[in-house]
Amino acid sequence: MNFSTVSDQLTIPTYDSVCDAADKLAGMVCRTPLLESPLLNAEVGGRILVKPEVLQKTGSFKFRGAYNRIHRLDGDQRRKGIIAFSSGNHAQGVAYAAQLCGTPATIIMPRDAPEIKVNNTRAYGAEVVLYDRDHESREEMGRQLAEERGLTLVPPYDDPYIISGQGTVGLEIVAQLAEQQTTPDAVLSPCGGGGLIAGTSLAITHSHPDLPIYSVEPEGFDDTARSLDADERTANAPGVRSFCDALLSPMPGELTFSVNRTTLAGGFAVSDTEVANAMAVAFQRLKIVIEPGGAVALAAVLAGKYDVREKTVVVIVSGGNVDGQVFAKAVGGS
Amino acid sequence: MNFSTVSDQLTIPTYDSVCDAADKLAGMVCRTPLLESPLLNAEVGGRILVKPEVLQKTGSFKFRGAYNRIHRLDGDQRRKGIIAFSSGNHAQGVAYAAQLCGTPATIIMPRDAPEIKVNNTRAYGAEVVLYDRDHESREEMGRQLAEERGLTLVPPYDDPYIISGQGTVGLEIVAQLAEQQTTPDAVLSPCGGGGLIAGTSLAITHSHPDLPIYSVEPEGFDDTARSLDADERTANAPGVRSFCDALLSPMPGELTFSVNRTTLAGGFAVSDTEVANAMAVAFQRLKIVIEPGGAVALAAVLAGKYDVREKTVVVIVSGGNVDGQVFAKAVGGS
Repeated sequence: MNFSTVSDQLTIPTYDSVCDAADKLAGMVCRTPLLESPLLNAEVGGRILVKPEVLQKTGSFKFRGAYNRIHRLDGDQRRKGIIAFSSGNHAQGVAYAAQLCGTPATIIMPRDAPEIKVNNTRAYGAEVVLYDRDHESREEMGRQLAEERGLTLVPPYDDPYIISGQGTVGLEIVAQLAEQQTTPDAVLSPCGGGGLIAGTSLAITHSHPDLPIYSVEPEGFDDTARSLDADERTANAPGVRSFCDALLSPMPGELTFSVNRTTLAGGFAVSDTEVANAMAVAFQRLKIVIEPGGAVALAAVLAGKYDVREKTVVVIVSGGNVDGQVFAKAVGGS
Repeated sequence: MNFSTVSDQLTIPTYDSVCDAADKLAGMVCRTPLLESPLLNAEVGGRILVKPEVLQKTGSFKFRGAYNRIHRLDGDQRRKGIIAFSSGNHAQGVAYAAQLCGTPATIIMPRDAPEIKVNNTRAYGAEVVLYDRDHESREEMGRQLAEERGLTLVPPYDDPYIISGQGTVGLEIVAQLAEQQTTPDAVLSPCGGGGLIAGTSLAITHSHPDLPIYSVEPEGFDDTARSLDADERTANAPGVRSFCDALLSPMPGELTFSVNRTTLAGGFAVSDTEVANAMAVAFQRLKIVIEPGGAVALAAVLAGKYDVREKTVVVIVSGGNVDGQVFAKAVGGS
């Protein structure tokens, strides 16, 4: 693409760049706890430690990367403003980070994004431009706006500062495991473009080099799992649908996959039904609100894709921005 | 009552007994975070810092007091077992604490308690005995069982160890405010029998003697507010109903009120409609699941009973054990 990008200095994310992000984010982010339900553990016959990024500012981990990226813009870039594409969580993270940095934000979002995500992005002061997924090119719309206004693109995942910011989730997990004197058998994370799991796996493998880390994706959008198997970036078939609106990326990012191919042990895929069940279990047992895309890793454990019996697993829950009616439908029968 | 009680050593809760409880609970409880939503703050024109005890083990703060009480039983008491009365959150806290201590637990619960609370109490290994609120005396049933089996009563609030355990919520709030370098203008807490707010106010006033702390209760069950006004324990009128099932105590506890009359600045009452709105706002903005009784303090702020504009307030959210259908109804229209 022709946008001016902001990753001029750092070219690849590293453990050190994740630690640097943690320094920059100190006091800005919520250090989300590591939650555990005795009843849920008894039900699955193992231990599930949940990292609930639903409690993060803006309701998902995305604020971490967005702030780590945007606050490094120079004065001219900040003045002119930034632009981002997003189905909703990156949108909110970028909009709030831009607001904190005093930078105008333009966000291009699909017309069918959840209402809560569109409304919140506007509430953080961003200008939202809607596009039609099937008939318009967000890249073309973005290019035009960026050229007209001299905007800087903040990519959703394929950027070393974004990946480093998301990796602070992994640093917190490592510290919290040490505080609990616990060594898990595996880590499972939701995966869309792969930024969260790339940064997190960099952070975790530094101190736990043999700990297996798995991506979890919706069925039909398991491009990372298949790319890991093939050891090359592989796209999803077009036309597939899932209600995990946060995880509909067409293929792994170039930069994220360059990390993930070296750090991940493999990937799982889960169905919409398994995801809805995980949302209901989290409602009952953990008292947190998870959006569909945020619940895939928990769904993989509950559906037995990863067998947690007599094991301890860390499960990242990545976001909670879900409309009331969708959530009510998932939990109302419980 | 004729039960043997377990509060032989400590007669009144103090700041020191709260600190002692914190030592005993270290590693057993979840240190719940202090959450904040930028959008919610913008909407109310102030800062709301939420202490979400919904994330606590067993889904409410009650585990803190129960464990602080039960793990101090002597060998004979532990072997014979404990008994408790509860509409549900104390039941679960006691049942899980008893399970951890290897003590048999018998819990007397109203037949109309939320299904999730009854089922969970059983899942923690307790024997649940149901009674009819309108036609049976739980005290009489309990007395009979306790005599037959030599059980020790674990009271829901009027016990110095229970109050001290709940007070660890306040110690955590004090530490978290210091970490954030924030001094609030007020603290609001849900109030049933008054154990949570008694312990918490002991912990907070020790370091913040001038910080006003307010009880919040359901309309018709605002016995603590009226007792504070009258400076003597005052009962609620019989026959009132509220969907805040966790907060239906008939009057303040003797011990809890002896603390609260010296530490509290006053009390607010909220309607069921205001509570349901607070549950929906917490779903949208904080991504946590709050049960009706747990949401009353947040409701008081959102309804303007406490005016938070240009102020900072700490709001305790005390529990999240709510049936799916009730929650779906509260958030489904949002």
